[in-house]
Amino acid sequence: MTHIRLITPVITEGIRKLDDIAFLKSPTLEFSHVLLATGPSSIECEFDEALAVPGVAARALEAEKDGADAVIIDCMGDPGLGVARELVSIPVLGPFESSAHLAAMMGHRFSVVTVLDSVRPMLENLATIYGVADKLASVRVIDVPVLELEARITEVQAALAKEAEQAVLHDHADTIILGCTGFLGCAEAIRAHLLAKGLDVPVIDPIPTTVCLAEAFVKAGLAQSKHCHPRPRPKPVAGYDF
Amino acid sequence: MTHIRLITPVITEGIRKLDDIAFLKSPTLEFSHVLLATGPSSIECEFDEALAVPGVAARALEAEKDGADAVIIDCMGDPGLGVARELVSIPVLGPFESSAHLAAMMGHRFSVVTVLDSVRPMLENLATIYGVADKLASVRVIDVPVLELEARITEVQAALAKEAEQAVLHDHADTIILGCTGFLGCAEAIRAHLLAKGLDVPVIDPIPTTVCLAEAFVKAGLAQSKHCHPRPRPKPVAGYDF
Amino acid sequence: MTHIRLITPVITEGIRKLDDIAFLKSPTLEFSHVLLATGPSSIECEFDEALAVPGVAARALEAEKDGADAVIIDCMGDPGLGVARELVSIPVLGPFESSAHLAAMMGHRFSVVTVLDSVRPMLENLATIYGVADKLASVRVIDVPVLELEARITEVQAALAKEAEQAVLHDHADTIILGCTGFLGCAEAIRAHLLAKGLDVPVIDPIPTTVCLAEAFVKAGLAQSKHCHPRPRPKPVAGYDF
Amino acid sequence: MTHIRLITPVITEGIRKLDDIAFLKSPTLEFSHVLLATGPSSIECEFDEALAVPGVAARALEAEKDGADAVIIDCMGDPGLGVARELVSIPVLGPFESSAHLAAMMGHRFSVVTVLDSVRPMLENLATIYGVADKLASVRVIDVPVLELEARITEVQAALAKEAEQAVLHDHADTIILGCTGFLGCAEAIRAHLLAKGLDVPVIDPIPTTVCLAEAFVKAGLAQSKHCHPRPRPKPVAGYDF
Amino acid sequence: MTHIRLITPVITEGIRKLDDIAFLKSPTLEFSHVLLATGPSSIECEFDEALAVPGVAARALEAEKDGADAVIIDCMGDPGLGVARELVSIPVLGPFESSAHLAAMMGHRFSVVTVLDSVRPMLENLATIYGVADKLASVRVIDVPVLELEARITEVQAALAKEAEQAVLHDHADTIILGCTGFLGCAEAIRAHLLAKGLDVPVIDPIPTTVCLAEAFVKAGLAQSKHCHPRPRPKPVAGYDF
Amino acid sequence: MTHIRLITPVITEGIRKLDDIAFLKSPTLEFSHVLLATGPSSIECEFDEALAVPGVAARALEAEKDGADAVIIDCMGDPGLGVARELVSIPVLGPFESSAHLAAMMGHRFSVVTVLDSVRPMLENLATIYGVADKLASVRVIDVPVLELEARITEVQAALAKEAEQAVLHDHADTIILGCTGFLGCAEAIRAHLLAKGLDVPVIDPIPTTVCLAEAFVKAGLAQSKHCHPRPRPKPVAGYDF
Repeated sequence: MTHIRLITPVITEGIRKLDDIAFLKSPTLEFSHVLLATGPSSIECEFDEALAVPGVAARALEAEKDGADAVIIDCMGDPGLGVARELVSIPVLGPFESSAHLAAMMGHRFSVVTVLDSVRPMLENLATIYGVADKLASVRVIDVPVLELEARITEVQAALAKEAEQAVLHDHADTIILGCTGFLGCAEAIRAHLLAKGLDVPVIDPIPTTVCLAEAFVKAGLAQSKHCHPRPRPKPVAGYDF
Repeated sequence: MTHIRLITPVITEGIRKLDDIAFLKSPTLEFSHVLLATGPSSIECEFDEALAVPGVAARALEAEKDGADAVIIDCMGDPGLGVARELVSIPVLGPFESSAHLAAMMGHRFSVVTVLDSVRPMLENLATIYGVADKLASVRVIDVPVLELEARITEVQAALAKEAEQAVLHDHADTIILGCTGFLGCAEAIRAHLLAKGLDVPVIDPIPTTVCLAEAFVKAGLAQSKHCHPRPRPKPVAGYDF
Repeated sequence: MTHIRLITPVITEGIRKLDDIAFLKSPTLEFSHVLLATGPSSIECEFDEALAVPGVAARALEAEKDGADAVIIDCMGDPGLGVARELVSIPVLGPFESSAHLAAMMGHRFSVVTVLDSVRPMLENLATIYGVADKLASVRVIDVPVLELEARITEVQAALAKEAEQAVLHDHADTIILGCTGFLGCAEAIRAHLLAKGLDVPVIDPIPTTVCLAEAFVKAGLAQSKHCHPRPRPKPVAGYDF
Repeated sequence: MTHIRLITPVITEGIRKLDDIAFLKSPTLEFSHVLLATGPSSIECEFDEALAVPGVAARALEAEKDGADAVIIDCMGDPGLGVARELVSIPVLGPFESSAHLAAMMGHRFSVVTVLDSVRPMLENLATIYGVADKLASVRVIDVPVLELEARITEVQAALAKEAEQAVLHDHADTIILGCTGFLGCAEAIRAHLLAKGLDVPVIDPIPTTVCLAEAFVKAGLAQSKHCHPRPRPKPVAGYDF
Repeated sequence: MTHIRLITPVITEGIRKLDDIAFLKSPTLEFSHVLLATGPSSIECEFDEALAVPGVAARALEAEKDGADAVIIDCMGDPGLGVARELVSIPVLGPFESSAHLAAMMGHRFSVVTVLDSVRPMLENLATIYGVADKLASVRVIDVPVLELEARITEVQAALAKEAEQAVLHDHADTIILGCTGFLGCAEAIRAHLLAKGLDVPVIDPIPTTVCLAEAFVKAGLAQSKHCHPRPRPKPVAGYDF
Repeated sequence: MTHIRLITPVITEGIRKLDDIAFLKSPTLEFSHVLLATGPSSIECEFDEALAVPGVAARALEAEKDGADAVIIDCMGDPGLGVARELVSIPVLGPFESSAHLAAMMGHRFSVVTVLDSVRPMLENLATIYGVADKLASVRVIDVPVLELEARITEVQAALAKEAEQAVLHDHADTIILGCTGFLGCAEAIRAHLLAKGLDVPVIDPIPTTVCLAEAFVKAGLAQSKHCHPRPRPKPVAGYDF
């Protein structure tokens, strides 16, 4: 039995349902899910991430203690990925890193379609650090505020589908990564829209994809290199319970 | 039940045993294995690969027809990877591409330790095309002819372990990819050698790792982009039964 | 007397005339030309290339045996370039590699105008492997099926000229490579169109250019590095006469 | 009068003296200095940085409120640089980013000599994100634990000087960045050692250099782009006083 | 007192006023200014630069002899930057190199807006050599001949502002470098235009920015690496007084 | 009849003999040769190059007026390459650019063996601008002053051969470019040394290679893009007869 712990790096109750990964449950795979005790209510900038990372660190330690086999940080900015990799020995995965590497295997160039223009520098920098910048065709955005997404979901899906189509036609992307976690049905809607336009382009839904990849790490007996991510030495700290 | 077909792209009976992936068998995962009907007896250069690829193409078509859920090309040069991706819709994976992307996620830089100096250009070019060249610290070789490997396995393991150690100490690798498929025990021996030197460095055994990744593709419902790898149009061909 | 052998890597009689290089014949330069005995009828994807390469290998060996001084593989995908370089010691050239390096010397950025969208990944990957990706401004296509080109040649020339103009004006190309071999007059037509628009941009016709470069290799006494491309060791092979 | 606020991103009293920048004080330039109220006692890994960043954020906001003209984060990992740039409009500088860009202007390649092997990935990643990876010849380390540095300062200086010499002779560096802030005299000692070996190589002492660059930003009326680093929108937060 | 010598690398009297840097004068900073005795009347191509560089060399030597603390070459092509760095030991700065590195620190991507299409290759090559090519979003031009600029200054400012806006909206630039030295008010006009469009994007005016950076070099005791830029050995020369 | 003009960009009589290209003379190929009227006596740094370029410009104009079909600048720094390309319409070639692009076609990585450490930055920057930096394995030097080369030719050949061998064994080069023009026999000596060590590595002698490539440009009807290298507009100049 492989047990995967999802850490949604915000404090907002109800923001995360597990419906999108329910189909992956099996006699050999189970999930658990936590929010943060301290941190931001949503993540839209580097400051939000900074407030989330100490909480992610605590949740990663807790996951290992609870016997989880792998940890997934449920946010496309992968906040705290390196930190959690230092703190634990079980594999820690982020959905953008995971999606980007699988997308790099699936075609020649991939694009990310997401909600806000302000995340472009972050995603481009991460793609560079992850080593896959040459495979990133573009980051395209629909410019809808995060808090309005749920209420305007039909409009959002249409806009994402249109940007995905533009990414294929104008940026020469052949694979699409959905750049927002937690919106049910978007991947299918974009895929269907592209197929209807004659574009047989896969759309990566980040969280289910990362769950499957995390299970692969566990089965293969692999995890982050502790030579690269050594466990921090104990030292005095003020303001945190570590 | 996920069914994975391994294609070993040579004609040599007995060169491939499935012992290294036996531990992955489960009620939900089964393997099948084929050699080529036409092709080389081993793969050591581009010419060998060229003679293997039409045979890999035939075996990939056959695998899809047989109902396999994914195909793995069992050679670190990933011969015929792009060709097979054109011919079928089920995911096709190569062990070098798979290992390189997972290694890129596991640390800052990875090295490949392998047997022959002549494969360096090929592996470096593949790493570039796969988009992970920035993560490749080095390709290190032990310079033992392929046909002598089995007879000199103890010496080979020691040499691979020594090169892996050099890769960590001098090339700043923190993750090692084993650059030869099919040698039982090498990954464990290298890992143990490095740990004994105080270097907590993971060693990727390519075939079991690729099997786990292939299963992840199948579970996540992903495969190569057919927009990037469209199915070839039928046309007259001489000398092949396609 | 320098003798250059052109290998057109398809089986289709009549597809190749030598009119475009007739002006290069001289008392010191002669050509010969062969098609393949086994292979595809045209080359439009990686699968077609895979079926061509064993035939190219046979023709390269034959060319060296026949006393040719250099070999040119007459296809912009350069299929079998590395393989032929392993098999023989005389220089082997491909028209895309040759054109790309000369274009890189002629200006700041070059574009390729060609017929089909599906060759973009292949050309971009080759440019990367050849080391000139930074000089490639764009690959632009006219989206006309190969088999309709001859019948629609006037339309094709106009479309290529228009894409070349767009490459100069929008992608900042200053040199154009014609991405289809064997269409008489296209290079001149594109060059004239650009000049008429006030754009003094050279257009590289790949095969005559590659012939001149092959002669330069022969005169300078240079060929591929056999240290990089060592001759394959003999070994059992099934299905091929090597 | 330009007022520069140094934020030393740890909680440890006495770790930072201002002797190394005292020579820069003038009727037009003054400094102030703060430690963190919450955070780690030293910074040696990503986890330490994560605990520092919320404290840096608070200190950056305070600096702007106090009327400082610029902020410097006093650590070679530049922790919180992007976060502080979001929160305030006055220029925020980090010593590694500043030193790397000046070094890039001073020669062909620069090396960083620092104390611990574990910071190599971080410094290499930062150089990549900062856009100057092509100018980084090497990161060289002396492998002395941070807490032993002060007690072994003579040995440390000698080791740094030796690594700097190796960087020039073997890695072709022509400019050296001192990769530890706060060690008085190291830059001069390394420079003198290199000169004695006939190597006229400048050595960048990060904090004084960053102070001078911060003053240049203020004088030129420049600061981080708020289009790139927009001020975070207010939202509920748990566990922090923002 | 820091004394900065500006060398305007042309022979044309009156082309350079110091109004744009007058605000930087202080009891501790003074400027002097020279034109060339031999060279071109303006710089618009590589040939013009070639005729300027020997004159720049003479003026750099003279500046050091006159006791200047730093030299600035007043042209966005930075002509003679490497040459002057060989000849003298005081810091030599060029406005494009200086602006590009500061812009790289200020945001994710910068664009240069300038007057002539023909300078794009030069600026892109310099950005590559300077190591900041990854940070250059685009070079945009207004296509107005240099000699008509002064007479059409209102039109020029409007065109530059429009291109800057396009660079932000379409090329994802967040920082703008003004690619023409000596046009008073352009930086402010572009900045104001962008702010009016809701784009809080800094605009770098190259010469005042480079003056401030030169002063920072002097204060920090830094200059070009003489290991990289060694003083030329004396040798016979024809046609020049060196 | 193709007429190629060699411009040796120094003033020193007797430094250039044409023995190394005598074997290329034929009924269809002739050479002429000039030195500079103004310029340096040798080229060892950027300052020397700056003094040579105006003289190269004059000689390039003269060559075109004299009816030459192509111009070669006889120095591995390619001084004035871009300038001469602006001034004339006949092809202008430099030996480093030419050798680097041919070497890039011949193998996976090439190394340059040359005389002085101080040219490394220049050669590396040129390789980057030429677009072939990824193919450059290393620049290796023997550290013998230029003026002592002729007297110590046996020692020089041995040292170059040894560095070439090191480049193959340690830097993984498979092709060698001789980085000094005009030393008769060095290419053959290095090639023979490498063969004797079992290394079948081609050695490019830059000037004969560039002559052959220049002839290829002429035959193919190609030259530099005048869109990239437009002819300078006439304007007042002081100190030069242009």
